Amino acid sequence: MKTGTILAILGWLLFFLGVILLIPLIISLVYDDGSWTAFLWSSLIGITIGGAFAYIFRAEKEINHREGFAIVGLSWILAAGLGALPYVFSGKIPNFIDAYFEAMSGFTTTGSTILKEVEVLSKSLLFWRALTHWLGGMGIIILSLAILPILGVGGMQLFKAEMPGPTKDKLAPRIQDTARILWGVYLLLTLLEIFFLMLSGMDLFDATCHAFATLATGGFSTKTASVGGYESATIDTIIIIFMILAGMNFTLHYRILQGKIIKSIKGEELKLYLGVGFGATVFIMLSNWWNGIYGDMLENLRYSAFQTWSILTTTGFGTADFDQWAPSAKTILVTLMFLGGMAGSTGGGIKHVRALIFLKFTKVQIKKLIHPMSVEAIKLDGKKIPQDVVQSILGFLSLYMVVGIVATVVVTFSGIDLVTGCTSVIATLNNIGPGLAGVGPAKNFADLPYPAKVVLTFCMVAGRLELYTIALLFVPEYWRDARPPKTRWSR
Amino acid sequence: MKTGTILAILGWLLFFLGVILLIPLIISLVYDDGSWTAFLWSSLIGITIGGAFAYIFRAEKEINHREGFAIVGLSWILAAGLGALPYVFSGKIPNFIDAYFEAMSGFTTTGSTILKEVEVLSKSLLFWRALTHWLGGMGIIILSLAILPILGVGGMQLFKAEMPGPTKDKLAPRIQDTARILWGVYLLLTLLEIFFLMLSGMDLFDATCHAFATLATGGFSTKTASVGGYESATIDTIIIIFMILAGMNFTLHYRILQGKIIKSIKGEELKLYLGVGFGATVFIMLSNWWNGIYGDMLENLRYSAFQTWSILTTTGFGTADFDQWAPSAKTILVTLMFLGGMAGSTGGGIKHVRALIFLKFTKVQIKKLIHPMSVEAIKLDGKKIPQDVVQSILGFLSLYMVVGIVATVVVTFSGIDLVTGCTSVIATLNNIGPGLAGVGPAKNFADLPYPAKVVLTFCMVAGRLELYTIALLFVPEYWRDARPPKTRWSR
Repeated sequence: MKTGTILAILGWLLFFLGVILLIPLIISLVYDDGSWTAFLWSSLIGITIGGAFAYIFRAEKEINHREGFAIVGLSWILAAGLGALPYVFSGKIPNFIDAYFEAMSGFTTTGSTILKEVEVLSKSLLFWRALTHWLGGMGIIILSLAILPILGVGGMQLFKAEMPGPTKDKLAPRIQDTARILWGVYLLLTLLEIFFLMLSGMDLFDATCHAFATLATGGFSTKTASVGGYESATIDTIIIIFMILAGMNFTLHYRILQGKIIKSIKGEELKLYLGVGFGATVFIMLSNWWNGIYGDMLENLRYSAFQTWSILTTTGFGTADFDQWAPSAKTILVTLMFLGGMAGSTGGGIKHVRALIFLKFTKVQIKKLIHPMSVEAIKLDGKKIPQDVVQSILGFLSLYMVVGIVATVVVTFSGIDLVTGCTSVIATLNNIGPGLAGVGPAKNFADLPYPAKVVLTFCMVAGRLELYTIALLFVPEYWRDARPPKTRWSR
Repeated sequence: MKTGTILAILGWLLFFLGVILLIPLIISLVYDDGSWTAFLWSSLIGITIGGAFAYIFRAEKEINHREGFAIVGLSWILAAGLGALPYVFSGKIPNFIDAYFEAMSGFTTTGSTILKEVEVLSKSLLFWRALTHWLGGMGIIILSLAILPILGVGGMQLFKAEMPGPTKDKLAPRIQDTARILWGVYLLLTLLEIFFLMLSGMDLFDATCHAFATLATGGFSTKTASVGGYESATIDTIIIIFMILAGMNFTLHYRILQGKIIKSIKGEELKLYLGVGFGATVFIMLSNWWNGIYGDMLENLRYSAFQTWSILTTTGFGTADFDQWAPSAKTILVTLMFLGGMAGSTGGGIKHVRALIFLKFTKVQIKKLIHPMSVEAIKLDGKKIPQDVVQSILGFLSLYMVVGIVATVVVTFSGIDLVTGCTSVIATLNNIGPGLAGVGPAKNFADLPYPAKVVLTFCMVAGRLELYTIALLFVPEYWRDARPPKTRWSR
C-alpha cells in the first residue's frame, strides 16, 4: 500500500475543492450576502492543507487496486469535511456534526437535510449546497463507469467494456478520456435543464441550483417547500424529465448523442428502469385515486409521477407529502427506494441491473430444483454473465442488508421510533433524501439525536460508494502492508 | 410426474387426519362441551374422501424429486383445509377463510390468530388448535431433516448426512427410521414439559396444550392473555427452557441422548443460536432498563428473556406487550424474527445456519477485493461447503426477499397501515405469530381485511415449507409432463 500516493492525491483533491470554493465566494460578493469570509477561510484551508499534502507526498505513477479503494473512500470523507466548513464558519449551522451531515448529504447526492428552514441560508450557501451535489454527481459518474469496474466492486465489472473514449492500454489516460466525455454530457444536460427551467419562469440562480440537484439526483432545493414551492406544472414536468434522464446510465446519453439510438434503448436494464418507473406511477395513481387524495386525474398524474420518479431516481425533491398518502402508496415508494437508478447514473440504491441479475439468479435456482443437473447461465442483453460477477452482486446485496440492519438497530437505539429509524436508514443508505414519519418529505433530520446523525452520515457515504469501498477501510487485513508514506524528500 | 402417486399419498394423509380428529371428538365428549358433532363430521369427511382417494389412486413405489415437492406443498394446503372444518362446523369461526387461516396457523406452527377472545372456543376446539401445532411440528422435523435434504432445497443438503438411524440404501425405509427416532425425541420432550408444567400448577389440559404449542414453536395458548395469563415465574421459566430446546436441531437432542454430548455442542450453528438468543436478551434488558419499563432487574430478566426467546424461536407466546417497549427493543425483536430457529428444529425464519453461511459468503466477497485472485472456500464446522449449497442458500434468501416484498405490497394495498402490514408479513412468513402495531402481541389478526388474510395464509405455508416447495407449484414448467393419474383399475 503506497500511502504516499494516497496522501498526495487526497491533497490534490482538497486543493482543487479549495479553488472551487472561490466560486460561492464570488457569488457571496455579488449578492453581498455576508457569507464571503466563511468561504474565504474554507478555501484557504483547502488550498493550504491540500497544497501542502500534494507538495510533501510523492505520488507514484502506478496505482493498484488497494490504493484505489483508499482514495475513493477517503475522498468523500475528506471532501465533506472541507465542504462542511462554510456552514460552520458562517454560523448558519454551528454544530460541526450537523454541518458535516449536510455536506456529506450534498457530496453523496443524498439530499437529506438537518435544516428546518432552508431559507435561513444565504444565497451563496444555498449555491454551495447545490454545488456539492453537482460535484458529487460528477464524481459518481466516473466512479461507477470508470473506477469501480476496474476495482471489481459489486458486479460493476459488467461495465468494463462500456467506458466511452478511445481504447488505450494505459489506464490513467483512458479514465481521463472517459471523464472528459461523460462530464461533457453531464454539463450539457445541466445547461439544458437550466435553460428550460428559466423558460418556465425560474430565475438563473434557482434554475442553476435545481439543475445541479436534479442531474446529481441530489434533491437539495432553495426552498423548504422544495419544488412544490413553485406550484408550476411546467417546472414539475421539466424536473420529472431530467430526473428520469439523470437516473439513466450516462454512457447511454453519450451513445444516443453519437446516433446509436436503437442499440442504446434495447438494453434490459433500461427497460426495467422505465418499466418500474412508469408501472409504479400507475400503481400510485390508482392508490391515490382509490383513497380520494386527488380529485382531478391530471393533478393525480402530476403529483404521483413526480414523487415516484423523485424516489426511484433517489433525487428526493418533493411536490407532495407522500407520508400522508395511503399505506399502499407508501409501501410502493419504500420498495422503490431500494432500487434506485441505473448503474452508471448519478442515482443511488442497489441499481436496477443488480436487481435484474438477482431476480434471474433466483429464477435459475428455482429451475434447478426441477432439473437438478442443469447448468443454466445468467444472461444480460443476450450475453452470459461470468459466475464471479454474479457472486460479486450477491455479495453486494448481502453486505447491503447487513449494513442496513446494523444501522437500523443502532439508530433506533438512540430513541427514534421504528418507522423513522428504519426509513431514515433506507433514505440515507440509498442516497434518497426524505423517508417516512419523523423524516418524511414535510419534515427533516434536524431533531434526530446526534448518534443517529453520525450513523446516517456513515450510511450516506457507504451507500454512495457501493459499500465495499467503505467496508474495506474497516478490514485490518486491508491495511496490513501499508508502507510509511514517501515524501518529496525520501529516496 | 406421477399424479396418481401424489393423489394416493394425499388421500392417506387426509384419512390419517380424519382418524386423528377422533381424539378431540373424544375430548369433547369427556368435557361435554357440545363440539363433538363438528369433529364427527370433519372426521367422516377426512376418512371418506381421503380413504376414497387412497383406494382409487395407485401409488407407485418410486417417488422422485418432483412428486416429493408436490406432496410436501399440497399436504399442508389440504391438511389446513380439513383442519379448518371443526371451527366452521362448530359455528365458532363461521367464515371459512378465517377458519382456514387459524388451521394453517396451527399446522405451520405460526400461532397468529384471528380470534379476539381465545376463550370463546370449547375445550375440544382449544385442544384441536394445539394439536394442529404439534402435528405440524412433527411434519416439519421430518421435512427439514429427512425430506428437504434429499430434495436439495435452500441448502438443506447440508443435513443429508445427519439423518439419524441405520444407513440404508433404500430411501423410504431410511426416512421411516429417521422419523421414528426424531418423533421419539419430540414425544419425550413434550411429555417432560407437560410434567414440569403440571408440577408448577397447570392442569393436565392446559399443560398438554401449552407443551404442544411450545415444542412445535407454535404459540397458540388456551388463554387470550397467552402464557402471561398464568402470572407464574416458574411457568415462564419452564416454557423459556423448552422454547430454547424446540428451536434446536432435533438431531442434537438425539445425539445428546446417545451420550455424544461434547461433539454435539461444538457446532457453529448452535453457538450462533445461543449467542444471538442470550445476547439479544441482554440488549433488550438494557433497553427496557434504560427506558424504565421494569423497575426490578429480576422482573426485567424474566420478561425480556421470555419475549426474546419466544420471538427468536418463532414460538410467539407472550407474557408482555413488546409493542409498548422502546423502538430499540422492537428493532432487535424484528431482526430476530428473520433469524428464527436452527435448521432441523420446529422453528421458522431463515434459520441460523443460513444466516451464518450468508455472513461468511459476505466476508469472502470483501476479502476477494483485497486479493482478487484468491479462492476461499466457505467452511462450516471445519468442513468445506460445496459451491452449489452456497448458491442454493443465496437463492433461498433472494426468493425469501422477493416473496416478502410482494406480500407486503399486496397486504398494504388492502388498506392496512405500514407497520402492521410489514410486520404481519414478517410474522407469518417466519411462522412467529404476533407482529407489531395492529397485529402486536396484545392484538390479533381478526380485523384485517380478507384479501390480507388470504395473502398472510399463503405466507405461512410458503415460509414453513422453505418457499421453494410452494413456489415450484406456480412454475408451469414443473407441471408440464404431468401424467393422468393411475387408478386402481388402470393397466
